[in-house]
Amino acid sequence: MSALGFPKTPSDKKALEEGAVFSPRFDPAGLVTVVVTDAEDGMLLMVAHMNAQALALTLETGIAHYWSRSRNALWKKGETSGNFQHVVEMRTDCDQDALWLRVKVLGHDATCHTGRRSCFYRTVGLVDGKGTLVDDGSKPLFDAEFTYRKPSS
Amino acid sequence: MSALGFPKTPSDKKALEEGAVFSPRFDPAGLVTVVVTDAEDGMLLMVAHMNAQALALTLETGIAHYWSRSRNALWKKGETSGNFQHVVEMRTDCDQDALWLRVKVLGHDATCHTGRRSCFYRTVGLVDGKGTLVDDGSKPLFDAEFTYRKPSS
Repeated sequence: MSALGFPKTPSDKKALEEGAVFSPRFDPAGLVTVVVTDAEDGMLLMVAHMNAQALALTLETGIAHYWSRSRNALWKKGETSGNFQHVVEMRTDCDQDALWLRVKVLGHDATCHTGRRSCFYRTVGLVDGKGTLVDDGSKPLFDAEFTYRKPSS
Repeated sequence: MSALGFPKTPSDKKALEEGAVFSPRFDPAGLVTVVVTDAEDGMLLMVAHMNAQALALTLETGIAHYWSRSRNALWKKGETSGNFQHVVEMRTDCDQDALWLRVKVLGHDATCHTGRRSCFYRTVGLVDGKGTLVDDGSKPLFDAEFTYRKPSS
């Protein structure tokens, strides 16, 4: 566990938006939204969430930790795949309910669980009045099926 | 109102992650998270949310519409400031619960309600064991106080 805590949201809007005190606004589930981009070329890699513990560990270790909403568990990104995220810079937005991590991805330089570099590999458009996705052709950088296989019982 | 609807999330994971049908996964509040970057230089401008209506209007008009969680209302970004967002490209992520808009900002080329170009104008770091924000010095591009003033009664 980390000892690092975060102060409550100030009631003064100016303090929240222009101040120097980091007081992240966690949602009712205790999470903030995190946008993750590549520090070198700015590519959007993923959108994830952090609770206070994941955020504290990220600040203290410089390695990105998240809260997995699907597994309901703390998630040190890269623990299985080796694709850890080294945090080059963290930013927050005007009302401190979102974070931006600029990272260097280790391992295969892949962030998506499908093996691709980015989770955003499909464009959205309207075709005959229906929302339609087009794959941008980006290829897996590692064998996700092998990496994330479950141990046989 | 828009007539455009969105199909339910497929139960098949492969269809969700690799398919061509756009089936955005709205959260229990009916929203998806939207990351907005500048189409030209990739700068992260803001994080916002869309409900189905805002998403449909965005796809149909090519101008970004959001759902304002603070005002509980549909929000055509730029309606007050003139800083509309023209959508150059929309993408979705592997499990279709987040969207990425690459936009050209009209008007003052400013996205933040403080008048700055981006909402992410402060870095986060640890100073003496406390989360501390440092302003990056980006200046307002329009007079937010004047633009968003309330009409006197």
